Formats: sequence, C-alpha cells, structure tokens
Amino acid sequence: MADRRVVTVRPEQGSYAWTFGGAAPVARIAPGTVLDLFTEDCFAGRVRSAGDLVSQVCEFPFLNPQTGPFYVEGAEVGDTVAVHFVSVEPARDWAASTTVPLFGALTSTHTTATLQPPLPEVVWMWELDRQRRTCAFETREGGMRIELPMDPMHGTVGVAPANLEVRSALVPDAHGGNMDTPEMRAGTTCYLGVNVEGALLSLGDGHARQGEGETCGVAVECAMNTVVIVELLKGVATPWPRLESDTHIISTGSARPLEDAFRIAQLDMVRWLQRDYGFAELDAYQFLSQAGESPLANVCDTNYTAVAKIRKGWLPPGTPHRGLHDELRSAAVGLRP
Amino acid sequence: MADRRVVTVRPEQGSYAWTFGGAAPVARIAPGTVLDLFTEDCFAGRVRSAGDLVSQVCEFPFLNPQTGPFYVEGAEVGDTVAVHFVSVEPARDWAASTTVPLFGALTSTHTTATLQPPLPEVVWMWELDRQRRTCAFETREGGMRIELPMDPMHGTVGVAPANLEVRSALVPDAHGGNMDTPEMRAGTTCYLGVNVEGALLSLGDGHARQGEGETCGVAVECAMNTVVIVELLKGVATPWPRLESDTHIISTGSARPLEDAFRIAQLDMVRWLQRDYGFAELDAYQFLSQAGESPLANVCDTNYTAVAKIRKGWLPPGTPHRGLHDELRSAAVGLRP
Amino acid sequence: MADRRVVTVRPEQGSYAWTFGGAAPVARIAPGTVLDLFTEDCFAGRVRSAGDLVSQVCEFPFLNPQTGPFYVEGAEVGDTVAVHFVSVEPARDWAASTTVPLFGALTSTHTTATLQPPLPEVVWMWELDRQRRTCAFETREGGMRIELPMDPMHGTVGVAPANLEVRSALVPDAHGGNMDTPEMRAGTTCYLGVNVEGALLSLGDGHARQGEGETCGVAVECAMNTVVIVELLKGVATPWPRLESDTHIISTGSARPLEDAFRIAQLDMVRWLQRDYGFAELDAYQFLSQAGESPLANVCDTNYTAVAKIRKGWLPPGTPHRGLHDELRSAAVGLRP
Amino acid sequence: MADRRVVTVRPEQGSYAWTFGGAAPVARIAPGTVLDLFTEDCFAGRVRSAGDLVSQVCEFPFLNPQTGPFYVEGAEVGDTVAVHFVSVEPARDWAASTTVPLFGALTSTHTTATLQPPLPEVVWMWELDRQRRTCAFETREGGMRIELPMDPMHGTVGVAPANLEVRSALVPDAHGGNMDTPEMRAGTTCYLGVNVEGALLSLGDGHARQGEGETCGVAVECAMNTVVIVELLKGVATPWPRLESDTHIISTGSARPLEDAFRIAQLDMVRWLQRDYGFAELDAYQFLSQAGESPLANVCDTNYTAVAKIRKGWLPPGTPHRGLHDELRSAAVGLRP
Repeated sequence: MADRRVVTVRPEQGSYAWTFGGAAPVARIAPGTVLDLFTEDCFAGRVRSAGDLVSQVCEFPFLNPQTGPFYVEGAEVGDTVAVHFVSVEPARDWAASTTVPLFGALTSTHTTATLQPPLPEVVWMWELDRQRRTCAFETREGGMRIELPMDPMHGTVGVAPANLEVRSALVPDAHGGNMDTPEMRAGTTCYLGVNVEGALLSLGDGHARQGEGETCGVAVECAMNTVVIVELLKGVATPWPRLESDTHIISTGSARPLEDAFRIAQLDMVRWLQRDYGFAELDAYQFLSQAGESPLANVCDTNYTAVAKIRKGWLPPGTPHRGLHDELRSAAVGLRP
Repeated sequence: MADRRVVTVRPEQGSYAWTFGGAAPVARIAPGTVLDLFTEDCFAGRVRSAGDLVSQVCEFPFLNPQTGPFYVEGAEVGDTVAVHFVSVEPARDWAASTTVPLFGALTSTHTTATLQPPLPEVVWMWELDRQRRTCAFETREGGMRIELPMDPMHGTVGVAPANLEVRSALVPDAHGGNMDTPEMRAGTTCYLGVNVEGALLSLGDGHARQGEGETCGVAVECAMNTVVIVELLKGVATPWPRLESDTHIISTGSARPLEDAFRIAQLDMVRWLQRDYGFAELDAYQFLSQAGESPLANVCDTNYTAVAKIRKGWLPPGTPHRGLHDELRSAAVGLRP
Repeated sequence: MADRRVVTVRPEQGSYAWTFGGAAPVARIAPGTVLDLFTEDCFAGRVRSAGDLVSQVCEFPFLNPQTGPFYVEGAEVGDTVAVHFVSVEPARDWAASTTVPLFGALTSTHTTATLQPPLPEVVWMWELDRQRRTCAFETREGGMRIELPMDPMHGTVGVAPANLEVRSALVPDAHGGNMDTPEMRAGTTCYLGVNVEGALLSLGDGHARQGEGETCGVAVECAMNTVVIVELLKGVATPWPRLESDTHIISTGSARPLEDAFRIAQLDMVRWLQRDYGFAELDAYQFLSQAGESPLANVCDTNYTAVAKIRKGWLPPGTPHRGLHDELRSAAVGLRP
Repeated sequence: MADRRVVTVRPEQGSYAWTFGGAAPVARIAPGTVLDLFTEDCFAGRVRSAGDLVSQVCEFPFLNPQTGPFYVEGAEVGDTVAVHFVSVEPARDWAASTTVPLFGALTSTHTTATLQPPLPEVVWMWELDRQRRTCAFETREGGMRIELPMDPMHGTVGVAPANLEVRSALVPDAHGGNMDTPEMRAGTTCYLGVNVEGALLSLGDGHARQGEGETCGVAVECAMNTVVIVELLKGVATPWPRLESDTHIISTGSARPLEDAFRIAQLDMVRWLQRDYGFAELDAYQFLSQAGESPLANVCDTNYTAVAKIRKGWLPPGTPHRGLHDELRSAAVGLRP
C-alpha cells in the first residue's frame, strides 16, 4: 500500500457539508487515494442523553453533516466513482436513536399529512461495546436490556446531483445520498455515477446498526472513524448507485411510492445482468425474478430506498466494473485499523 | 403420531377452488388433523412447454387453483387457524415460469395503465432435480444454463375473508391468499385469523423457488405434494397473517401502495412484540427499527405483500401463540416423507 | 312513457344487499324498465343524532346497504348495462356526516397504518331544505351555521364483479360500487360492463352533497327516493364505469395509489375517444391532455376513484353508446316526480 | 397606478434561470413593484415545428427557462410573497406540445421504470388566435382540426427552496415551482412562503391552455408576455403555495404518491379555514369534505400536484391574507394591456 496517498479529514465544527452539490470541496484527491475520515452523527452530535430532544437541541436544516466533499481529479460526467469501505468503526462508545415528530414510517408526516398529533418524542441511548461488537439499549418502560450485534454502516454516501441541483443531505436519489441501506458496510464497494466535474463525493450518517426499512426513521446513530479507498472508472456510467460485496451485486432505487424504488432497483439489476453477465433482457428478468433478494433500505426518508441483490455464486461468469471490487479488497488488507 | 388423523386430498379436475370464500368445503377436519395434499400449479397445469402461452392455454378466471377449502371444526370468528408446513415437495420434475401480458413489476398493467404495448410473452421451462435439490433453466437467448437451489414454498395460503366477501385466489389481503412470500416453506407455521365459522382454509400455488418481490409476476411454478398440520387457537385474534419459523417471527402486510404493505407488517410486528414479549409500544418501535428484516414478498399481485421479520435469538423471553410452533415442529418429525 | 314498466322497490329491514355479487336478485327486470327505489343511507339509518357514533350504533359489516340487486334480462358478459338517473331526491329532511375512527384521507387508517391514535369521533347532523335545495349544518364549536347547495347523488352504483368475486358494498372497482363521485346525479347515465349473467345491478349510498375527494370519508349521507331507467347495450363492452351527462363524457378509475386511479380513467378516456370519436391513439392522448377535467371522486375508500371528463361541446362529432343518453333524457321527462 | 414602479424584463438567451435557488437575482424590487415580463416556453423556444423532437433539439438540463429570479426587498424567512397575475398573454401566434420519451402519465418513466420501450415521440403544433381567444391543432392522423378555448396560465412560479437546496425548474414542491395548475391564470394571486432572504421569485412555463393533470406531461406550451404585481406580507407564513381568485381560495400540495399531494393540499385548506375563517379543526374538516373541489394539476412531474378549492361564496366571513387579493385586483385594473 506504499503507493496510495492517505488523506485524513477530521472536520471541525463549521466545516461539514449539509448538501450534495453546492458545497466547496475540502480536498482534491487523485483516484486511488485512501481517505481516513471522521464523520459526525446525523444529529451533529447534539443528542447525547435521553433528555436531548431533536426538536430542542438540533437546528434545522443543519442535520446529517457530511464529511467532504472531495473533488476526484479526472472525474467527468459519464464516469463512475467507486468508494470501497475498508473499515467503518464507531468513534464513541455510545450512540443515540429517537422518534422525531412527524418523521418515520409509522406516523403521519409532513407529506403523508393527517390531522393527528405527532407521536411522543423519545430518545434511546445505546451503549456500543466495540470489543464484543454489540450495541444495547434499555427499554424506556419495563427496564429490559436489549443487546444486538453491532453492524456498522454509513447511511449517507453520495456525489453532487445532476440537473444543476443541490440536495439536502437528508435526501436519497440517483446521486446516492441518504439511502440508509445496511449494505453500506466495511468490505463493500459503492459505485456512483458522476454528474459534475470532480464528482464531489461526501459521506456521513454512521449507524452502529440499522433494521431494514429504518422504521422509526432513525437508526443507532453514531460518529464513525471510517477508511475508504476512492477510485475512478472512466467511461463507465452508473445511473443509480450500485454496491458490490464479496457475496452479492446490489442495485438501489430511491423514489416514492415504494414500488417505484423497487422498480428502479430491479430494472437497474436487469441492465447490470445484461451488461456484465451476457443475459438477454427477458432472460435477465426471469433470472432476477427467481434469484433476487429484495430487502428494503429505508421507508422513511424523502425518497424511499429499495435494494435488489443477487448472490454472486449464482451468476454466470462476468467481470463487473472491470474487477475493481476484488482489487480494492486486496488493497484494503493492509489498511484496516 | 398415532393420534393424528390424516386426511389425504388429491383433487380431480373440476374440484379445485378458485376463490377464498364462496366455495363449499371439501372436508371437515378436527383441529390437529394432518392434511396430505396435492396442489396443482398456478396455471392449472396447462403450461407444459415453451409453446404454451398463458394467454392461449389458460382460461380466465380459472387461475391459481386451491386445494380445499377445509372446514376446521370449532373455528369461530376471533380465533386463529395455524397451518404448520411439514413438507412441501415438488410433485413433478419440471416447473414453468413466464411473462404474462400486462402483469408483473417491470411492465405497465391493467391498473398502472399506460399506452405502451405489453412485453413479449415468453415461457421458461425449469428442470427440478429433487435429489440434488436444484432447479435449472436455459436462457432463451445465448443458451446459458442457470441452476439455483430449490427452495419449495406455497405462494397462496388463506381462509375465507371477512366482510361477506369472496376474493379471487390471485389476491393477497388480510385473509392471507396469494401473498407469495418465500417464507412459506416447510418448517414454518402460518397463523391466519378466522373470519367465518369453520375458517375455510385452502392452499395452492407451489413454487420450486421464488425471488423476493416475484419481479416478473411468476415464480418457478409447480405442482406440490404438501403435508400440513392444521391447529386451532381459540380466543387468539390474528388481524394479518403471521408466520413463525425456528429462527424468526414474521408479520405480513398486503396493500397498495407498497409502503402501506410495509406499514401494516411493521405495525403488526409492534403489536406482536407488545402482546407476546412485554414491550411498551414505543420501545417495540425502537427495537423493530434496529432489529427488523424487511424482505419483500411480491410487488406484482393485486395487493403487494411486505414481510417484517425478527430473529428469535434477539428477542427477550416470550411465548408466541402459546408455544404452538415448537409443539408442531415436534409433531412433524414423524410425518415427513 | 306508457310502454315502460315501472318496478317499485322500498326494501324492508333485512332485505338490503351488503355486497356486489353474492346476493339473490330482488327482481328480474326487462331492459327499459323504470325502477322507483328507496335507498337507505350508508349507516343503515342508524345515525340519527349527534350522539349516534358509528362505532357504537353501526354493526360491521352491515354498512352501505344496497337496494337490489336487479337481474337484467338478457344481460350477458361483454354487454353493458346503462342506468339513467331520472331523479335523486332526499327521502328525509335530515342527513348525517361523521368522522369514523381510522377512516378518511386526513388520518392514518387500517392500511396506512401508524401508531397514532384515531381522531375523535364526531357527528354532524345536516338539515335538508328540499324546497330551497340547500343543506346546512352547525359547527360543533363556535356555533356557525353553514349552508351549501343541495346536489343529490349516489355514492354507490354497481354490478356483480368479475373473477368469481363478491365485494363489499364499501369497495369501488371495475364493477362500479362505492365510487363516491358527485357526477352520479340526476340527468346522468352510468354505463357498467356486465360480468355475470343478469348483471345484478344495485345502488345506494345517497349523498345530499359531497365534496370532491370526500376528504373525511363521509358525505352528507341520506336516504333517497330515486328513479332510474335501466337499459341494456348488447355487444358493447365497458371495462371501467363510464358516465354521460348532457355536457360531458366521463370515465372513472378506482385503484391505489391514486395515480393508478388517474391512469385508469385517463387511459379509458383515450380508448373512448378512439372508439366513438375517430381519434388515433396519440391524437386522443394529446387532446385529452389539453381538454380534460380531472376532479377527484374519493380519496378515502378501499380503492380511490378518479374521474376523467371531456366537455361534449369540445368533441368532434360522435355517437357514444349508440345515442342512448339522449334517448333516455327524453324518456325521463315524463318520469320526474 | 402612478405610484407603482414597473420593471420590464425580456431576458436574452443565456440569462434565464434553470433552477429555483442557486441563481443570481436579475433585479432587486421593492414590494408593490409591477413586473412586465417575457417568458420563454418550456422548450427554451426550440420546438418550432412538427419535426423538432425534444430529444433532438433540446439540451438537458436546459429545459423550462425561468424569468428571474427577483430579489424582493425586505422578504425574510417566515414572510409571504404575493404574486398577482395582472395579465398572461401568449407572445406568439403558435404553441407546441409533444410526447417526451419516458415522461407523462400514460407511459412508464425513469422512476415508474419498466422494460417497455417508450411511446413514439410526436409533436403537435397549435395555432393561437389571440383575438378569438382560441387555440387549435390538427390531428396527426385523420386530419381533424380541434379548437379549444384559450386559457393562458403559468405552469411554473416559485421562490428559492428551504433546506439549502437548489431545485430544477421542472420540480414542484413546497417552494412552488412547476406546479402546472390551470388555476395560475390572470386575475389570480399566488402566495409563496419565503425561505431565503429576498425570496428569489421567478416564473415561466406559459401554457395557452392545459388539461387538469397534464396527462401527456406537456401542455400547449408558449412564450408569454405577463404582467404581475409582487407584494410582500410580513409575518405571514405560507407552508405550501396558496392561490386566491375572485371566486375561490385554493391550496396546493406537491408530492408522490398522488394521495400525499391530495393530503397536503387538503390539510393546508383545513389550516387556512382555521386561521382566516374561524373554524375549529374538525369543523373545518367536515366543511371541506362537503364543499371542496379537488381538480388535479399535474400527474406527470417529479412531484404530482393536487389542488383544494373552496368557493368564496360558501365561506363564512373572513379576510384571507389581509385582503391583499382584492386590493391587487383593483390595482391591476389600470395595468392590463
């Protein structure tokens, strides 16, 4: 790994980005650069105890701070930026989750608008045991202690959007952003299509773990120390964010209603099977229909995110994204903390 | 198992049910009865080669034949019928899948109505190797042979609906029906709320396997030899179908748009956690948000079906459905073919 | 009008239908018959004062009683039944409206399921002044008296559904049913496709008036004295209910999400323009896009209903439904009360 | 009208805005200023004959040019900008409409993604007769000439969005933007909540007329000469765009799925009835449910837009927006061309 430049960024207060697009780059990096990053939690670190209600301690729209953006040298419209997650490690021994008024899947919201009052605003503090790889909380009523495996991930990874837009870091869409999928964990490569020169990559919103769908709208939110390798695939277009793990290829779609998010991800997977695995269109449709896994990512954000996965062992021979994932997995070995 | 009555039903042509509700029972059974059943495939067995197009060989509305209904003695409104799947075994060494005009997730449909012509109607015949537990098809273009693990399941299990209704066997809703979830496999117990005296249980729509979401609308469809034990939980209400496996408790929701199917399943899981595991409402919401799995079942039927799962090992102590699943697992041991 | 048979039906308690399909006909009628009907309100007449809460006085599923069904002689699958509304007159000098727990557009529901408690259950009694053609209510708080024009209509008109189904009278779908469109007023002809021999027409759910969308889920509900002429169009198919007034041709679609209801109605209008007015498909699409009116019918029922209207004066020459509406308008003259 | 400053803006090529937010103001104006504007059509004037296909002559993302933005002096977050349409007059004697690949309500799209090919791309040129107030097109097949009343309006009116965002001019949302409602005609006042200092108002997307729902996604698109008066309501918040005509008060909502757009508009109308007409919440809900009109605006854009209307004559006494509409109607008299 001697040949990879390492750029370390631990932002100070006031130097986070709150949008995709519209923020000045914090650094210019060459393809192949290793980024050693600190990301703050989605509350900008302001929810630190059960008494810290989002509606009181957070300052809209300064939610979901992003570390970045990074200007990737040579990245042009029509290329793809690859972000390989070498490690994603909670930076503190605690995390927080909460209900947020009129936000989440099991409440009316500002768009699924009803006359009902919001649910109560309740905070749960989670303990993270980084050795045992667990996270735990105590129920607010009944005093049960619940322990779950830690499974750290980033809810938000993205580039500047197309169409001259600037989007809030809370939004998931074709540029990535707040997709909130548990698939975005260490060992995974995320592919993002480039919409503006330099791509303007940023990431944040660490979760010690998250259920599929992120039902209440908020995961086990924590600051992260995260190492990624950033690469560039020239001349490869990626209309919607894709991921690749050692075991699966993964498409995403973000839209409303949820069936459209599903359709986008599934159609993208058909196109992926056609491009990299030699399937004809309807054969790919048939294969996906029988082989696909379809876990939900989030059903709470401004767009919902669905995921389409295929197990690599079930695929015919193919070399997605020029074999970059395997290459980055190897490169990552010496970089883990 | 000497004390369980076994009822064997292998319907003749003309003796299937095409609806939930509205069909006369084929048998009255006592709780605890073992049903040894043959179920025909969703095409009523008429798609037997690549030339058998659904639009030509099938006769609407005679699709998705159900074996049953069974009148469960003592079942009354407010009770729950439990169906434990002892074994689900393909009855033939082949299965069929196909596109169907204006049906499926990646096409316009009769309700997501557009001016575009339908996709081509193409049939894929699948070979089932019941020893090796595989199923395989050859692509229509390029001649690739694709082999996948067999994972047999029933797309359709249900009881007569509430509200005086009779629903097509193609519909999933609160009465169960065509939920098309791969979770409905051997070793699982399905709980269905009783809406009419006798419950009127039937099942069909065997799949040698199915992807999550059943994208093209049609799984690897095959006739099945299936053994179930039917039990009755008096005084236990089940508003939406629930499943229980050795590893998970599972709620379902069926509705449109897809986010409503998700909401129903998630809310049902919150209620389940409250009733059987001692959670307060918002604590259950928090736990589910971090621990839940949310694979889609179908995104093609008249209602879409979403599933909410929780790993049993992560739950606090509790005894769902009076411990019936464990009891039926034991009872099933001697009944497997 | 000497040649039209008049059939008068004023059902007794216990002789209403609660479903479309599945109910025995109350009469066989020849095409051309005049039906002189009484219809009870959607509460089965049980909400008679502000203290009569639906959750207490009504008995599920015995809501939305239908007068009928009528077996139309000669009606076969593929034909169309036409129902011309000669007169729709409130049968009492009062009507009722109410909130219903977990029902309506501005509340979570059983399918748009949330953890929030239902809205309060409140009844508003309306006074109907049949001479002045007004209806009025007093606000529950502040004592304002609000008076609106009376505009009597039927929320529910339908035939037995296809696919062997029986649907609750609360459901709107391709068979008609609970469409809840204010367009269903005196002077209008409703066309319904026949799905079973005899069609099995019924109607009910009178509204003294209703806003577009029926936001709270309940209109100004009242019993009606209604006169219709029933005709039969042999060999004319009607996939989704259509209406015709003196000024407009009107298509309907009922589905979820609401955009699908819109798509169905709009596509049906394109097909109507093609069939009866000589448009090519894309020319019809263009014309509709610039000339169409799209008032919502209901956004609260189990399916939502959208309406597509075109002003007759803007259409090129054409003779929809063999000129039946004009003929029935003439025939109706002598039948009005 | 001697006391109103008139600012005339006829943008040159290259000086349009393509977004809401993110563009430098073309002028600073004091409240009360009259803007005398030219707006180019949504195609940036590039579709001028039946051979000019959008996919060939237009350059993404340079669609839907906006005239502006205007910095309104004194406008701060929490205030409301009022835009009174004095006159909206087609600037040419022709207009254009077209299908656009994968755009519109009766086709699959980039988000309602299917495997079907797009509809054919067809252009219709419309003749505008500004004296007779008509617009007409000839069908592409069959040579029918169709004439409709002219009803000029602006599809797009908005301010800079909240949350640090910049949105494409093709998007409708809480900041206004591409709402595409035929209600935005001369004689109407549009109220927009201010999200950034100076509001940054712009408008464009003239339609000689448009059907409700804008089914094919494209109206009768034309350049406009438009005169508006811009006013400022200090200390009045407007969460979603509202309109006021001589006959109606009108709320809007923009979201997906369409029922959410409906919910937003309806809930906003309940709040309006509470604030300006003295209704209690549930009384407003009841009144709206019986008195509301709910025509759709667009069912094709990135968000769909629904409209909630109440006839002023049916309202109890009230003074919406401090009587500004009436005042601007008077002021407009001397300003009409």
